Amino acid sequence: MSIRNLEFALKPRSIALIGASERPDSVGRTLFENLRGAGFVGPVFPVNPNHDQLLGVPAYRSVDALPSAPDLAVIASPAATVPGIIDELGRRGTKAAVVISAGFAELSAANGAALQQAMLDAAKPYLLRIIGPNCVGILAPAAGVNASFAHLTPSAGGVAFVTQSGALLTAVLDWAAARGIGFSHLLSLGGMADVDFGDLLDYLASDEATTAILLYVEAISHARKFMSAARAAARGKPVIVCKSGRHAESARAARSHSGALAGTDAVYDSAFRRAGMLRVSALEDLFHAVEALALGRPCVGERLAIVTNGGGFGILATDRLLDEAGHLAELTPESMAKLDALLPAAWSHGNPVDILGDAAPARYRQALDIVIADPNVDATLVLNCPVAVASSFDSARVVVEAYARYRSKPLLTSWVGGAYQTESRRLFEQHGVQSYDTPEQAVRGFMYLVNYRRSQTALLETPPSLPVALSPDRGAARDIVERALQRCSPPTRFRSCSRSRARRRTTPRRLPRASANR
Amino acid sequence: MSIRNLEFALKPRSIALIGASERPDSVGRTLFENLRGAGFVGPVFPVNPNHDQLLGVPAYRSVDALPSAPDLAVIASPAATVPGIIDELGRRGTKAAVVISAGFAELSAANGAALQQAMLDAAKPYLLRIIGPNCVGILAPAAGVNASFAHLTPSAGGVAFVTQSGALLTAVLDWAAARGIGFSHLLSLGGMADVDFGDLLDYLASDEATTAILLYVEAISHARKFMSAARAAARGKPVIVCKSGRHAESARAARSHSGALAGTDAVYDSAFRRAGMLRVSALEDLFHAVEALALGRPCVGERLAIVTNGGGFGILATDRLLDEAGHLAELTPESMAKLDALLPAAWSHGNPVDILGDAAPARYRQALDIVIADPNVDATLVLNCPVAVASSFDSARVVVEAYARYRSKPLLTSWVGGAYQTESRRLFEQHGVQSYDTPEQAVRGFMYLVNYRRSQTALLETPPSLPVALSPDRGAARDIVERALQRCSPPTRFRSCSRSRARRRTTPRRLPRASANR
Repeated sequence: MSIRNLEFALKPRSIALIGASERPDSVGRTLFENLRGAGFVGPVFPVNPNHDQLLGVPAYRSVDALPSAPDLAVIASPAATVPGIIDELGRRGTKAAVVISAGFAELSAANGAALQQAMLDAAKPYLLRIIGPNCVGILAPAAGVNASFAHLTPSAGGVAFVTQSGALLTAVLDWAAARGIGFSHLLSLGGMADVDFGDLLDYLASDEATTAILLYVEAISHARKFMSAARAAARGKPVIVCKSGRHAESARAARSHSGALAGTDAVYDSAFRRAGMLRVSALEDLFHAVEALALGRPCVGERLAIVTNGGGFGILATDRLLDEAGHLAELTPESMAKLDALLPAAWSHGNPVDILGDAAPARYRQALDIVIADPNVDATLVLNCPVAVASSFDSARVVVEAYARYRSKPLLTSWVGGAYQTESRRLFEQHGVQSYDTPEQAVRGFMYLVNYRRSQTALLETPPSLPVALSPDRGAARDIVERALQRCSPPTRFRSCSRSRARRRTTPRRLPRASANR
Repeated sequence: MSIRNLEFALKPRSIALIGASERPDSVGRTLFENLRGAGFVGPVFPVNPNHDQLLGVPAYRSVDALPSAPDLAVIASPAATVPGIIDELGRRGTKAAVVISAGFAELSAANGAALQQAMLDAAKPYLLRIIGPNCVGILAPAAGVNASFAHLTPSAGGVAFVTQSGALLTAVLDWAAARGIGFSHLLSLGGMADVDFGDLLDYLASDEATTAILLYVEAISHARKFMSAARAAARGKPVIVCKSGRHAESARAARSHSGALAGTDAVYDSAFRRAGMLRVSALEDLFHAVEALALGRPCVGERLAIVTNGGGFGILATDRLLDEAGHLAELTPESMAKLDALLPAAWSHGNPVDILGDAAPARYRQALDIVIADPNVDATLVLNCPVAVASSFDSARVVVEAYARYRSKPLLTSWVGGAYQTESRRLFEQHGVQSYDTPEQAVRGFMYLVNYRRSQTALLETPPSLPVALSPDRGAARDIVERALQRCSPPTRFRSCSRSRARRRTTPRRLPRASANR
């Protein structure tokens, strides 16, 4: 539809919970506790037909009995009751509802779809917006809203996560909490009967508290609206999308999950790229994207320097950087001379800067001062492997100091290993320094910043004007296409043709392919 | 060379440490402490020209002063002294040395290469084998050998890790220790002046304690020997290789690191595949391979069932499974009927089996009993997202019980999130259950087992016999090749030709491409 009335869901002044409960481990109780425990300053009205009091506060027997119309209603009562409740809410003047209950169109049984239609019909006269059904709920920490049955409430931050799967909401939430990362919104869309990705992209694009948007998508419902919203959002902030159901079998699973009908993956892929979004394919990439977008400093250039106490790490990081079409910084002759003077003869004499396995914290500090300050370096990745002859934790401390000293350049870290590195990683988290388990993951984190910068450039491009005198030889062109098609055997046609064409184009490809992100 | 005398390095009865030291945080002291602290039952002789005693034990001024010839010498004295020491050792009758010292051919200065040659010349008359120089050392936990300056000693286990980078040795060691994973050997090869991958593959292939071999390779020195050793080793146990320096720039970094001259990556790639090895490209894949090979049960079939409390996880896992050419199990009608009876109507009605977000431990147990016992299921992946309404830890307990109950089938887990899932993951580690941070990583872990099984099948294949009456038309064949070559523009020649040729073959490709492993 639009962003109309969405503010009642995302910035409510009062909330009613239909289906509140005292029963331990019930959804109704968890919702009630979350609503009351997230710092919401307005009233929370529990509604339950059988109780006048719940967990020590007054409860209401019905929507009609409420003292005032709530801005937002959270509904966890049985599916069959929902259309009626929506109608009551609409009549009272409520403008938004989160429907937690399952049992609508996601069921193959016909009455599920009918119930869903009845719910929408009930909402329509009042322009009452519905998030869900069959979702985990929504969280807006800055507004004190935890209208979900997630197991914890996050801190406020800049990242918005919109997901068609509740499991991903709770998993990302748990993962981020351990890293001290906050969110502007966590929104579980469930069956997307009404509010969908396009609506929320529109809303979040102009939400000042949101600095980056992450989407987990199983299927897009209104393609045109989605594309226009995505393009607008991606112009102002990074939008990263994880679209699952890339194969026929997994798309079938997606259908049984959210009732979503996924189309051909290649179409999604092109659409995402065209809109300036970055696509990732795995959950771990979503995690790393959160890390990069929540903590990363904006990237003014692409040239990455790598400082490491283990040569192998530098090589693996470089491999991944080049896989993702990134750029290694070339150090200035002045920096090279300073490093020659500082480091033992066996150093790598270039970038990656291998400061060798016996590197004590002081050597890390001195090398970082040279490398970060180098005008040819836009960002620095610092790597560490455990060694018995120097303290990795003391080196981590040195890195945190350097991070504070050079505020204008991104700095990322990977202290690789297990228990020995836990303390150092925690130190990085405490100081908001991007920290990854492996060098390659860190490079990927860096490339989110780079690719966002690139996609901004690409979005602002216009096609080159055609020369006035152009008169294309259509016959010859058709001939070339025909011959190319004949050369390709049918099953591989699409792929091999598009590849050879791409290679033969005389104009350079402007939009980065970000191939390893897929 | 060969496996000659390698047993003196890997199963020594006595060890001398040349360059032993008392100085805190020095390599000489760390080596000494590691040698004494790893449970080695034979004598460890410290050698230092300036001391008669070190850390309370008698020390020797020279190799000549030793009471007997040590089986293995560990050398950490300056590079310039090494050729002389090797000569002395050879004369005494020592047959193997680990040279920790740096300053040989890995330096661009000419005297480094000359020193290395002098060291090899000194060793030659005695057939004294040299591991290194410029390495972290070697560990053989079952023999009580920690001849390294790594920061800890691992437990004994079945995985052998042979690496050209010391950083990867300490990182893998630290990572595995946190998971209770043991090793048969951890071998740092450094400059590979003498002992190389081929030698150690030959040795480890027939080492009964070694059940799987992992290699981190920057460059292969003796290609023919390597191929023959790799083929033999891969026939008997899984061999997984991470080869870095895949790009020109990273290969340059590899050269400055280990002095290795890396060739074209495509050649390595084909060679690895031909030898029946599995290739991975990132450090995290090496970690996951260790997990799979150390803990995984052998795979009797490829059909994977997925049980999850979050639909999105099941879809992401399926995507990755199909990316890697794996197979989803199709449940029997009997299992489907049982699951229909057990689960709420909204369950996924197929594999992945989405047992829904409110799944309590009992539902996990009942569903697992149906799924694991299904004759169409060869292995099971169990997934969990945090929810407020059921305990993920109690569900983990249920899974551990199921793992013990069904001993013949692999079972893998991914309890996704952060702090909330730590306790469950620890439980899985304690019980030797494969556990991964994300569903996709778990699928990759499973595919190591599958791909090993497949590569075994491929290794045993022979090319089909030629029909007796075959008389190839050489002229026509040459014509086809010529035309194909002309069609390809030079820079893309190799790649595009080989691709189209592969596609047009009429015989099916038998060897799996394991594409996502690269």
